[in-house]
Parts: sequence; C-alpha cells; structure tokens
Amino acid sequence: MTPSHIFFDVNETLIDIAPLRSAVAERLGGGEGQADRWFNGLIEYSLAETLAGEASEFADIAAAVLAMQVAENGGSIALDDAKAIVSDGLGQSEAYRDVPAGLSRLKDAGFSLVALTNSGGDGLQERLEKAGIGEFFDHALSVQPSGGYKPDRRCYEYGLSETGASADRALMVACHPWDLIGAQAAGWQTAFVARPGKAWYPLADEAEFVVDDIEDLARHILEARQSV
Amino acid sequence: MTPSHIFFDVNETLIDIAPLRSAVAERLGGGEGQADRWFNGLIEYSLAETLAGEASEFADIAAAVLAMQVAENGGSIALDDAKAIVSDGLGQSEAYRDVPAGLSRLKDAGFSLVALTNSGGDGLQERLEKAGIGEFFDHALSVQPSGGYKPDRRCYEYGLSETGASADRALMVACHPWDLIGAQAAGWQTAFVARPGKAWYPLADEAEFVVDDIEDLARHILEARQSV
Repeated sequence: MTPSHIFFDVNETLIDIAPLRSAVAERLGGGEGQADRWFNGLIEYSLAETLAGEASEFADIAAAVLAMQVAENGGSIALDDAKAIVSDGLGQSEAYRDVPAGLSRLKDAGFSLVALTNSGGDGLQERLEKAGIGEFFDHALSVQPSGGYKPDRRCYEYGLSETGASADRALMVACHPWDLIGAQAAGWQTAFVARPGKAWYPLADEAEFVVDDIEDLARHILEARQSV
Repeated sequence: MTPSHIFFDVNETLIDIAPLRSAVAERLGGGEGQADRWFNGLIEYSLAETLAGEASEFADIAAAVLAMQVAENGGSIALDDAKAIVSDGLGQSEAYRDVPAGLSRLKDAGFSLVALTNSGGDGLQERLEKAGIGEFFDHALSVQPSGGYKPDRRCYEYGLSETGASADRALMVACHPWDLIGAQAAGWQTAFVARPGKAWYPLADEAEFVVDDIEDLARHILEARQSV
C-alpha cells in the first residue's frame, strides 16, 4: 500500500553530524573509529535505559557515554563539558546535500513528512530550520514523551498517534538498521538509506526500499506509486 | 542485607575474551577500537532485537554485527565465516587470573554462585570448565529462555526463578554498567568490576561494591558480611 506519512530519522539520516563526530573523536584521542564507538555507545545506553524502565534525556546520555569513554581511555571530563561538546557539535551540523531536494519532491507529491528522532524535542524545529529543512515537515517529533527510545515499539505508536497515520500507511526512513527493525515490528514499511559507511543488519527482514540518499528515495517512492 | 546468591556476568567479567577481540579486530582491519566497536554493536543489536520483540541467538547476533561492520568498511564476509571467527575466538578465551581464587573464597564462604550470561546455554558449562571455573557454579544460566537480553528485566527474574533466590538477597557482578542498570531496576544489589578499560556510566546509581577484580570482590563481600 502506498504510504501516506513518511517518518524520517534525523541524526545521520538527514543531518550530517560530521562536526559532532570530529569533536568527539578529538576528545577521545582517536579517529573515525572512536566516533563510531561513541555513537554505538549512545544507542546502547539509550536502549539499556529503556529496558531498565527509566530513560534519561538523550543529550544527557550522549554526554554520559562520552564521559564514560574518556574515563575508559584513562582520562576524565566533567559531564557539563561533555554536554557542551555534544551540543556545540550538533549545532554546527548541516543537512546532507541531497536532503532538501528529496524532501521537496516528496512534499510536493502530497506525502505528509514527519521528523521522528531520539533527540530531545527542545530546539528540534529550530535545528531543522537551521539545517535548511524545517519547512518540509508537518510534524517534528522527539520520541521522548513515549517513555523509551527507538526501536522501542512505543516510539512508533507515539508517531502514529501524533500524526493520525495508520501503521500500514507509515514508512520509516533511516540509515540505521536498528531503527527499521523497530518499525518493521510495529507493522510499518521501511526504507534503508545506505549512506557511505552504513550497511544492513543481515538478520533483519529486508527493507521495502534500499536507497543511496533522500533524492534517490523520492525517485523510488514516486516510481512505486506510479506503478500501482 | 547480605546476599545469598551471587550472579556473575561471564564474558569480559570472568573470561578474558582477548583472543576473540584480536580475531575480530584483525578481520575489521583495525586495532582495539574496532574490537570495542564490535562488542558495543553486539550489545546494541541484542537490545534492539529485544525491544523489537524478537531476539535471535546471541552467537548469530555476534556474527551478524561482525558481517555488518565488515560491510561498513567496504568488505564482505559470509555469515558462516563470521560465526566461525566468533566461535573459535570464544573457544580460546580463558578466565582472568584473579577469578578462580576469588570464586573459590566465595564458594567456601557459603554463597551460591551463578553464571548469568547473554551467551547461549549450549556449551556454556563446558566453556566454564575449559576456563577452569566450572566447578564453582551452582547454576550456569543463559538468559535466552527469558525472551530478552540483559538488561531486560525478564533476564533477572529468570535468574531468580531458576535459583530460588529473592531479589533483595541477589547480587549481580559485572564489568558492564548496562548489566548492572538492569539489576538495579530489578531491585538487586550490584558490584562493578572496574577491569582495565572499563568505567562507570555516570547517570546510573552507584554500585554497592566497586572492585578491581574477583579476588577483590571476595575480600569486600566477606568484610561487609563480618561487619554486619
């Protein structure tokens, strides 16, 4: 069934967090691998807190994992300083070049576009606007009010309840397989954005769409709709 | 209250998985950071699968994450080959030197000792025996029958139901803060083993015991019991 609502993961899927990754890698005294490890750790602890039933603010988890990994390397950093690194890095991050054109085509074609992020809702709309893509979204949602982080099922249910979409007409777009695993479990369609350095998780069912970027996504979705 | 049952995480807490880490890092073409990233990814996907409501075998997740990360680096590896790397590496892993002496003291002091691992139950007892520590455990449990992975609450409830322990007399021992977060949420006491390269997660409540290794744990627990 053609989707009515297209939900987008934000960090790494739409917004290139390279400035944040560089700042984190530099503080950890290493290269790209350190940034990957920090981002994995952030997701790991957001899920651990979700499973333990008590989820801190996402920005606090991001800073806490950075502080923990600095300590693992034998150093130390105050939580407030770690939080400033995360916040400054995110503030400098911009949308990938393919994103405005892709979102514009999908918006013009009549789809409802929704940002659905693990990041906090405070300043989310502003961040999207600063990245030049705020105008495209009908809803800019943080999953935080749901009580858990993606891929917790409550996040996807929250997305539906806030937008009035039905699961069988919802499409989740992300460059993270773990996000799409949750959407699949909630009965949504999925699109995997295979950005450089991203790969599929081989135990998951295949995504309905596998695309290179958001322009490519628009092309695929509009073709699929035409062929119905 | 003095614990009656002491539950031990196995991989990295009791058993040094250095041979596995080396094999994984070599296949990923990098150093220690690659091994850390793989282990983080393994936990991340075990939690993502738990939250999505369908948890694959832990060894399969370990192999799938290795294959995904090889692909992220631009290479490729068959799932079966990834599985062989994980299985061979684990098979060569041995207990840390402090573990037999520490377990022996606790066992002699009358505590019930339980291995509680995310790893599968097939071959678990054999693996503990090969590592020279099989004799110390009253129960060697995989959390797999609970339907989720630590820190999912069901894992800790499963641990109690299999051993007859009560939550307020259960102590979880791990070098991973995410494991202890789950135990805390289940009302257990916790002991953090601060092995080299491990650090506490600053948003969690402090553990009752913070120790360097398992001999140090035994010393602390026996002192605490004496002072009651």
